[in-house]
Amino acid sequence: MENGRTVYLLSGPAGVGKSTTSTELVNRLTHSAYLSGDDISHMHRNGREKPWESEREHDLIWHNILHLTRNFVRYGSDVVIDYIIFPKDAEWLSNQLRDFAVTIKYVVLWADKDTLVKRDALRIEEERMGERCLILFDEFLQSGLNHKHLLHTSLLTPHDIQHVVREIETDNRFKHI
Amino acid sequence: MENGRTVYLLSGPAGVGKSTTSTELVNRLTHSAYLSGDDISHMHRNGREKPWESEREHDLIWHNILHLTRNFVRYGSDVVIDYIIFPKDAEWLSNQLRDFAVTIKYVVLWADKDTLVKRDALRIEEERMGERCLILFDEFLQSGLNHKHLLHTSLLTPHDIQHVVREIETDNRFKHI
Repeated sequence: MENGRTVYLLSGPAGVGKSTTSTELVNRLTHSAYLSGDDISHMHRNGREKPWESEREHDLIWHNILHLTRNFVRYGSDVVIDYIIFPKDAEWLSNQLRDFAVTIKYVVLWADKDTLVKRDALRIEEERMGERCLILFDEFLQSGLNHKHLLHTSLLTPHDIQHVVREIETDNRFKHI
Repeated sequence: MENGRTVYLLSGPAGVGKSTTSTELVNRLTHSAYLSGDDISHMHRNGREKPWESEREHDLIWHNILHLTRNFVRYGSDVVIDYIIFPKDAEWLSNQLRDFAVTIKYVVLWADKDTLVKRDALRIEEERMGERCLILFDEFLQSGLNHKHLLHTSLLTPHDIQHVVREIETDNRFKHI
């Protein structure tokens, strides 16, 4: 069945502007849901492990994201998922949604290392990633990512964000196949 | 199959201390997840209707809560759901979880009208419920609620909260059957 809905996977290393871009995108869509992977991850309180160290925790989070996505699509919404999503995660989710025949767009926002480090330093202390920021950058480079999913950003002004969001909406190169 | 996990449904009219009590409870449990019905409801951004006016929106939220609960229980967590939950919602969720054989505790925190109105006035403006606060109070009274689920609170000091949370954990009268 053709559903006509789009699921946007907005990924990239920390500090690249995922939240800002996701919020802007979700506001532009007529029927939309916003899923923050971080928020969903932190629903787990006691007994939680770091998802990048525990496969079990990683799987729990992705099952939660999957079921929420399925429900929202079933109720007629586009879905914007804001999380650190590696190619293998995008692949898994895409397979799990195959029976829905939704369009999946996988976008990895990108900036150079210096920019990421500077933005990280601007965060409040509890939210700073520190070294993990650079580790993530390298992990993306080594993840076998198809470069068509990369979107370089600087997001210096609100105008830049509008431009980036329009590109995500209209450019079919981001489609996950 | 006996799972051994408990799903806590923490309900009550606005201003009765659901969030405070839920947070305290979830922190006491060894393996726990915290689901805020309000947060889950607001994942829906554009196209969202008020869940108390739209059956469709209400159903979407409850399906999202259900699937998250099932996942967390499957991964070995207790679950605390903080939301305005009427007896028919508790009944529905309980039926949907029947194959899991979890224990379900349904607790409706309660305070007198004056207390609720006073607490509502203390909130920041965006979060104030105003008249709906009293409408909810009456709706609970008319909902056919079995009074064994009621728990009167005043929550004036941290000590009171500890006491309330211990009662929720240990008193079997709250079990939903």
